[in-house]
Amino acid sequence: HTSKLPNVGTTIFSTMSKLANDHQAINLSQGFPDFGGDQKLTDLVCKAMNSGYNQYAPMAGNLELREAIAKKINLLYDTDYHPENEITVTAGATQAIFTIITTFINPGDEVIIFRPAYDSYEPAITLNGGKTVSIQLKAPNFSVDWEEVKSKVTHRTKMIIVNTPHNPSGTVFSKEDMMQLEEITNDTNIIVLSDEVYEHMIFDDEKHQSACLFPGLKARSFVVASFCKTFHNTGWRVGYCCAPKTLMDEFMKVHQFNVFCIHHPTQKGIADYMQEPNHYLGLPAFYQQKRDLFLSLIKDSRFKFTASKGTYFQVLDYSEITQEYDLDFAKRLTMESGIASIPLSVFNSNNLDNKVLRFCFAKEDDTLKRAADVLNGI
Amino acid sequence: HTSKLPNVGTTIFSTMSKLANDHQAINLSQGFPDFGGDQKLTDLVCKAMNSGYNQYAPMAGNLELREAIAKKINLLYDTDYHPENEITVTAGATQAIFTIITTFINPGDEVIIFRPAYDSYEPAITLNGGKTVSIQLKAPNFSVDWEEVKSKVTHRTKMIIVNTPHNPSGTVFSKEDMMQLEEITNDTNIIVLSDEVYEHMIFDDEKHQSACLFPGLKARSFVVASFCKTFHNTGWRVGYCCAPKTLMDEFMKVHQFNVFCIHHPTQKGIADYMQEPNHYLGLPAFYQQKRDLFLSLIKDSRFKFTASKGTYFQVLDYSEITQEYDLDFAKRLTMESGIASIPLSVFNSNNLDNKVLRFCFAKEDDTLKRAADVLNGI
Ligand SMILES: CSCCC(=O)C(=O)O
Ligand SMILES: CSCCC(=O)C(=O)O
Repeated sequence: HTSKLPNVGTTIFSTMSKLANDHQAINLSQGFPDFGGDQKLTDLVCKAMNSGYNQYAPMAGNLELREAIAKKINLLYDTDYHPENEITVTAGATQAIFTIITTFINPGDEVIIFRPAYDSYEPAITLNGGKTVSIQLKAPNFSVDWEEVKSKVTHRTKMIIVNTPHNPSGTVFSKEDMMQLEEITNDTNIIVLSDEVYEHMIFDDEKHQSACLFPGLKARSFVVASFCKTFHNTGWRVGYCCAPKTLMDEFMKVHQFNVFCIHHPTQKGIADYMQEPNHYLGLPAFYQQKRDLFLSLIKDSRFKFTASKGTYFQVLDYSEITQEYDLDFAKRLTMESGIASIPLSVFNSNNLDNKVLRFCFAKEDDTLKRAADVLNGI
Repeated sequence: HTSKLPNVGTTIFSTMSKLANDHQAINLSQGFPDFGGDQKLTDLVCKAMNSGYNQYAPMAGNLELREAIAKKINLLYDTDYHPENEITVTAGATQAIFTIITTFINPGDEVIIFRPAYDSYEPAITLNGGKTVSIQLKAPNFSVDWEEVKSKVTHRTKMIIVNTPHNPSGTVFSKEDMMQLEEITNDTNIIVLSDEVYEHMIFDDEKHQSACLFPGLKARSFVVASFCKTFHNTGWRVGYCCAPKTLMDEFMKVHQFNVFCIHHPTQKGIADYMQEPNHYLGLPAFYQQKRDLFLSLIKDSRFKFTASKGTYFQVLDYSEITQEYDLDFAKRLTMESGIASIPLSVFNSNNLDNKVLRFCFAKEDDTLKRAADVLNGI
């Protein structure tokens, strides 16, 4: 019995987390905080469980939650998503992404993605018989050559997947980038999947450029976001996506038969929590402090870096230390030095190796200090 | 932007539940209890949330939960699933079913299903380019003509989906049925998807015939089950599937990129709850009492019936009342008489109408009494 993904192995995140656990290494690989979320939010979810929110939610999500999401994003991005039929709550951003691709990609369709790319995109495209067309972002800046994008758009291009702030590189798309994307897709039937799960983790003077800020883009886009990242509870599996009704109607046809609906009490708890406005305003400063702490502690190490502009990841260039293949080096660091990271080659076509590793800094300051001690000794 | 399911509408469950809400009808349509689960279980999930189970679970599920599942089913069905790599926790049974189909069905593959069939099977098959081959179960007994099954197996048959206890009809497969299935699939590469979410809701002298009881079947089967049904919390979205490692390895390739993992604190809470053995032993009697109450109350109505043998559904034949199309009649009953049900034609090929409606009796006795009052007046 072979599946449609004969060559796919276990996702790197599970592989590295398992290796970290097995070797009791400091785990800066898989992206999740080693601290908890707000106790108030946990209490609200428990309250929802104790007040009857335990049967099926509406397929698109608890309506109060959709209204809270609409209120937030319409204010934040000065837009007008309708909670009734343009917002769907999903089992994390991953399920939104998988379902969007499954809804629209037919055999032979081309999907443009930017490498290094989050590792769920390509298998979902492959499963649906689509062809992944890769644009390589070039280290160390990971910037987009929009002429190359233009040259790779064909009449078969059905979707372009963008991700800003960008995991794993920590770069962000500029307003210019989004305008280029808007122009390239203008007058086409291309659907844009804009993965914006790190929308609130953006540093220095950067501003998050959501696809929904650009009317031409918004009209063809699914914007995907995640409460798992924003509220520090990655194990709760609640995300959402927004899209114009005509797109969302199609999405729902698949969503309803994939998961039907999402954990109801968690939805209700988050909805209540969001009544407290601007719960996310502190996030950039919170994570910028962690990034700055981490980088200040390793500034004299042999790793080279440009400070991450967004996400809670920092890539470190180890080319002055060794010429080892990044996956091998990442494994050796985990097993021998006791620190786990994510090699970037797994996100590139042909496993292109730029000698960079990704470290998650969503960790207690003490964890970051212990991590820095290890890195300084390498 | 058309999707791959241009002709699919909103699932009947949402349609009827919405109509019931809009008309404040007694909702015996979508299958969910109008009572809550065990407070002890809710407390354990809250405890898990308050003791750090809030980050990603392993992709296959919290290991304690998988061990509890293995212990239970290996004992119950005298089998030997391994918790490490033969059991995966899913976002309800629906996501298990969707992922199994997505993993294995290629364009052109044939999948045999029995009609009336749960409404998520066919769209999932269609999405993957598969061809649905239907076997009609004939009312009122809904029994299988295995000669017909044999005659419809071809070299393209990749999967057979069975469902026992059977939703919507309330019938159950006998040992003979399962042996026929075992014989037909013997020496083939056919994968069996055995949807057993109502395994513990089985009445009178019936015994649940799990696919894993039959070695030849077990070797080719995914057995799908659900905590949502068993623990009366349909909104928690936690189910699971079991399969031999070689099948499960392929399933995981897709599962990891669809949902990655399931709500972690709920998994941990259920795992702790399952340490109390035999939590499910009372279920048959509990639901049989409800079935018996409901049927005794409507025995003099104009609806005809054979008592349901399993699930928490009862089908009622209304052919002596009206010759209306079942969907129309179900809607009219909801809007005019204030009671919502599910028409069976939506589960049949070509919407074959046998003049039967499905009523959910997972309701407080008082709800069932009020429902019976309405039905007796029709
Ligand atoms: C779904 S596990 C991966 C978590 C994550 O988003 C990352 O580490 O990039
Ligand atoms: C996922 S909503 C449908 C619930 C159910 O299983 C049913 O009513 O048959």
